[in-house]
Amino acid sequence: MFRIGIDIGGTGIQVGVVDGRGTIIAEESIPTRKDLPFPTQVAQIAQCARAAIAAAGLTEDDIESVGIGIPGIGGRNGEIIKCTNMDWNHVPFGAEFAKHMNKPVHIANDADVAALAESVAGVSAGTSSSVFITIGTGIGSGIILNGKIWNGAHGIGGELGHVIMRLDGVPCTCGNNGCLERYCSATALIRMGLEAAEKHPGSLIVQMVEGNLSAIKAKTIIDAARENDPVALEVYQTYISYLSQAVASVVNFLDPEVIVLGGGVSNAGDFLLDAVKAEYPKHVIFRDQPMADIRIAVLGSRAGIIGASMLS
Amino acid sequence: MFRIGIDIGGTGIQVGVVDGRGTIIAEESIPTRKDLPFPTQVAQIAQCARAAIAAAGLTEDDIESVGIGIPGIGGRNGEIIKCTNMDWNHVPFGAEFAKHMNKPVHIANDADVAALAESVAGVSAGTSSSVFITIGTGIGSGIILNGKIWNGAHGIGGELGHVIMRLDGVPCTCGNNGCLERYCSATALIRMGLEAAEKHPGSLIVQMVEGNLSAIKAKTIIDAARENDPVALEVYQTYISYLSQAVASVVNFLDPEVIVLGGGVSNAGDFLLDAVKAEYPKHVIFRDQPMADIRIAVLGSRAGIIGASMLS
Repeated sequence: MFRIGIDIGGTGIQVGVVDGRGTIIAEESIPTRKDLPFPTQVAQIAQCARAAIAAAGLTEDDIESVGIGIPGIGGRNGEIIKCTNMDWNHVPFGAEFAKHMNKPVHIANDADVAALAESVAGVSAGTSSSVFITIGTGIGSGIILNGKIWNGAHGIGGELGHVIMRLDGVPCTCGNNGCLERYCSATALIRMGLEAAEKHPGSLIVQMVEGNLSAIKAKTIIDAARENDPVALEVYQTYISYLSQAVASVVNFLDPEVIVLGGGVSNAGDFLLDAVKAEYPKHVIFRDQPMADIRIAVLGSRAGIIGASMLS
Repeated sequence: MFRIGIDIGGTGIQVGVVDGRGTIIAEESIPTRKDLPFPTQVAQIAQCARAAIAAAGLTEDDIESVGIGIPGIGGRNGEIIKCTNMDWNHVPFGAEFAKHMNKPVHIANDADVAALAESVAGVSAGTSSSVFITIGTGIGSGIILNGKIWNGAHGIGGELGHVIMRLDGVPCTCGNNGCLERYCSATALIRMGLEAAEKHPGSLIVQMVEGNLSAIKAKTIIDAARENDPVALEVYQTYISYLSQAVASVVNFLDPEVIVLGGGVSNAGDFLLDAVKAEYPKHVIFRDQPMADIRIAVLGSRAGIIGASMLS
């Protein structure tokens, strides 16, 4: 049997047909259009799903269910409570989708969906509890406990990025101060790198962007740190300390079997992983006990489709 | 049927016989003696349990199981991995106890046990997920998910007090800096009150302790704030802001149905509860959605015995 997984992204909506082993066998996409009326948006998504089914050489009868991962909050009975990418607030997605394709529809937050994908078909496969942390513009997270997504009693949990990490700290887009994502995201690394580059115009960071500081990316700082540039190294070590303290906070509070690091910054691979693994146990209270293994996500952007297809 | 609940405290060990409704029907205690050999410690606890059974007018045949709450880490098959009060490290408590009384023995962390007690027979009864936060010298916490204690994949979770709340902040007893309990415990409130009292000798705080600043307790500051002393009020409002941000962090990450506040500071009752309820939603990312109800614990020190008896 096959399932449909839908990933509502900021610029595009990816729809895939996924087999029983978590492999995407066909994929189609359409641009994200928040300006269209809700029924048209859903009709286009359903049309895209039909195209993916056809591309897989299947018919609708071969499809067991449809799962959808959204940047926002899923609800019950096919309702989507909030999805900023599409300007959806309390929309009856399931009921509208059923007009086009009569399949059970399951909805979840996109970080939760990615966490599920990694825990079933990715780097945390075979574990019963894991926390997936996606490190990009912000920090997203998904919690898997006893093999299932835990997104809270009201569906608003899993927002590790908005745990307070520095009281009265850097203002956050959410309206608060000192949120964890202001210290652990790619955006945070870039902010720290930019400050250091302004102070040290001779740094390799500045060289790498040919003096155009607004071109500094997380990768610029990571690459300069790999080259042992002292300015970049200091920034990177501070960033690793912050990220490790975030990981240790998750361990101290939730103690999952595995913590998975995903998102853009995780492309640094072992350079990131080895540093976090060495640093984070120092911040764990029971540091003489066995504790979470840290791993880099392996499914990348496919996690959205794969995890959505696994929703039930 | 009846069960035995044992609470290993810093100065005394409380043993109670608990009925099926979570009511303690008889209770005995002995002093905590970390200097005695392990077999003697266990023999004294078993003796105390027998005395409680007799005081309840029961026999050992009426007892279904024995539960024990420890400040530390429980293990599997009756092992206690760590219990600082008793100087226990990897001791076979269950096997030793069985020499005196042949009942199933269950072991858990004392904050987890209190969380369980409140969720079954206390203020969070009838809920499926809750986080219990005990606010005393430090901050302890227990997590209940789907009606069961969640203490992690390695038994080291539930330590909300050691989530990092201010990067590079106040040094903590655990060896790290900026742990949540350094900003949200009674100790933190006292530290802030003392600093304010030193700066403002005319404050009601100073009057209440007759100039003896070392006599300032959390209750002193709370009582002075209730009397609208401006110095105490400012300290209290800062403390409420910190505690509310801790509560919001729990909501953002775990989103339980209910958060229960216990421990010494929770004796402030509605004066604490109303302030936290008004403040914490401001720090929740999805603040326009339904979110956790906040309640004051009702079982007090009895939670240790009651919750231990409920372990299975």
